[in-house]
Parts: sequence; C-alpha cells; structure tokens
Amino acid sequence: MTIRRLSVYARCLLHLEEDGVRTVSSQELADRFNLNSAQVRKDLAYFGEFGVRGVGYYVDDLRRHITAILGLDTQHRLAVVGAGNLGMALANYDGFAGRHFRMVAMFDDDPAKVGREVDHAPIIASRDMAREIRARSIQIAIVAVPTESAQTVTDQLVAAGIKAILNFAPARLKVPREVRFKNVDLSIELETLSFYLAKGSK
Amino acid sequence: MTIRRLSVYARCLLHLEEDGVRTVSSQELADRFNLNSAQVRKDLAYFGEFGVRGVGYYVDDLRRHITAILGLDTQHRLAVVGAGNLGMALANYDGFAGRHFRMVAMFDDDPAKVGREVDHAPIIASRDMAREIRARSIQIAIVAVPTESAQTVTDQLVAAGIKAILNFAPARLKVPREVRFKNVDLSIELETLSFYLAKGSK
Repeated sequence: MTIRRLSVYARCLLHLEEDGVRTVSSQELADRFNLNSAQVRKDLAYFGEFGVRGVGYYVDDLRRHITAILGLDTQHRLAVVGAGNLGMALANYDGFAGRHFRMVAMFDDDPAKVGREVDHAPIIASRDMAREIRARSIQIAIVAVPTESAQTVTDQLVAAGIKAILNFAPARLKVPREVRFKNVDLSIELETLSFYLAKGSK
Repeated sequence: MTIRRLSVYARCLLHLEEDGVRTVSSQELADRFNLNSAQVRKDLAYFGEFGVRGVGYYVDDLRRHITAILGLDTQHRLAVVGAGNLGMALANYDGFAGRHFRMVAMFDDDPAKVGREVDHAPIIASRDMAREIRARSIQIAIVAVPTESAQTVTDQLVAAGIKAILNFAPARLKVPREVRFKNVDLSIELETLSFYLAKGSK
C-alpha cells in the first residue's frame, strides 16, 4: 500500500469521526470519498483486526492505528525556508496546523522580514540557518525559495543535518540518499485537469 | 495508466530534451528520475510506435505525443481566485508559466488589490466574477481563498460555467459531477515524509 493512500484514509476517517460516524465499511468509505472501492477493500483487509464482520471497521481505532503507522502520533518540528508569498501561504496553511507538525522557525534573507513573527514562529536570517536548525531540533524543512536559490538552500539544509525536505521550487535538486526528499510539483495537478478538459471537448 | 504518471513522464522527457538526449530506454528513464522501472516499462510499452528495438524511445516524438494526450497542445485560460499569499504565490509560480496555461485574471474582494496587475493579468472584484469568466473564456479556476469562503466561491464558479477547478483550501467542497474538480492537500505530502522519519527512528 502506498503511504499516500494511508494518508488519504487517515483524513477520510477523521472526517467520519467529526461527523459522529462510529463504524464504516470499505464500500461506504469508497462511495463517500470517491475512492476506488476494490482498492479500498484490498487495502483495509490489511487492518482486519479493526473490523467487525457485517459491520465494517471501527472508525476511531482504525484511524489511530493508521496515524501511528504514519508517524503522526508524535509532533514534527519544521521550518519553512523563504518568507515570500509561497512561504507565508504555507506557514499560514490551515492544513499544516494541529498536533502533527509545528512550524518553529522561518528563514529569510530580507532584513525587513527578519525578527518578525509568523504564527508564533520567528523569521530568522538565513545565514543563521545551520545553527538554528540544530538548536531548535528541526527535522523537516519546506523549501519555498525562488528556483535559482533552491539548490543552495537545500545544500545548506543537508549540511545542517535536516532529515526530510519538502520542495516547492520547480527545480531539479540534488539531495543525498539519506535525506528524505519530496518535490511538490503544482503544475502536475493542473495538467490532470487539462486532460479531462481535452477529453470532454472531443 | 494514471494521468498523473503521464504528466510525470512528459516532464521527464522535457528534461531529457533540454539536456540534449535524443533517445531513452525505459530503464534509463526509471534510473534517472527514480521511478519504478517495471512500471515505466509497462507504461511505455503502450507507446510502442515511438520505440526502436535495442535503442529505446525517441524523446521528442514521445513527449509530443504524451503532451497531446494530456490536452497540453492547446493553451488553457485560467483564473486564480484569491489574491492573498497563496494566490499570489500561484500566480507567480514558475511551473505554471509557459504555453500550456495562461492566467488571464485574478479575483479578490479587497478594494486595495482590485485594479492592480499580476503577471500581466488584472485583479478583478469578486462580484464581477461570473461576467468576467464568461467574457474572458476562462475554463479553469484555481481556488486560493480562506477555508471559510471556499464553498461560496466554488458555487459562484460553477454557476459561471467554469469547467475545471483546482482547490487549495483545506475544505470539503461540494461540486456537481459535470465539473472536473481536484483538491490539492498539501499536508498529505508532509505526512508522507513523516512516515519515513518515523520508520527511520525505530
């Protein structure tokens, strides 16, 4: 099972919990969230211990279990590098809030921004990045700088001992194997829509 | 084959073209871009007509073909709703630039922003959204407003005849079946990294 699907299930189960739903079958889950029902059935069978014959799965138990697998039962300390529009949008993104992730610092070069606070986290000068990442036990960094500075920033993060990087710059970055690295390419999502528009117009 | 994978291949092939590579085997493609090689072999076999035995695939022919399938041989006119940090970041996102998509308008409520230009596109008052979407033949809208206004904005877009919506607000939105709709949940990417951090620490 892909990690991405686990993450999607955790989200769906949380929505069900919020709606007061106590048990759910794989078919209901698939219908309600527009998922592939054969896939959901196969995936959830893996968590048979949380199922009850004829009823489905206990929503809270299953969600807690999946959350633990995802490593979301602890809080990860993260930094956002780049306090431009994208960095500020990410720092204020509702979806990142909550128990799982906590932004403890932002980094930027702009003296006009350094010293200000965003969502209780200070904006710190980029030249202090290595020291502050260690001092604040930051594990995850989000790269939200312009394309041309993305590799330099990434090299600095790696040198500072960061363990995981989420990159939003549309750049091809080199990262050593031991660092977990993920590119978020926002144009891929747009291209998916483009496909359906093209198909619809024929 | 998923549309998402097609989009990834199109990107990889473009990178190869930029690097002056003329032919590529599925194994080379997988190695170079860290893809699952069995999957790539299976997917590309579908495009056998662009292959040469013992050599691989012609990079430019294959890319042009995939681009056409994705509906990226025409230009889509899009609007960004919400000129806050996220909207501005998306409007200026390098990855959206180019021939495939063209932002022709932004919409916002803030009188201080209305009338300004972003990347040659005007910021227009939200109350004129329906009229301007029709007048400017806008097909795709990107929703980058706060969670609490996301459903209202989406309803207005649907009523104005928009065909595809890419939503960045972490909200559960209702959209009629005939409109192509995609949620971009940025926290899912973070959670994937969290999984690997948790695994590594055990």
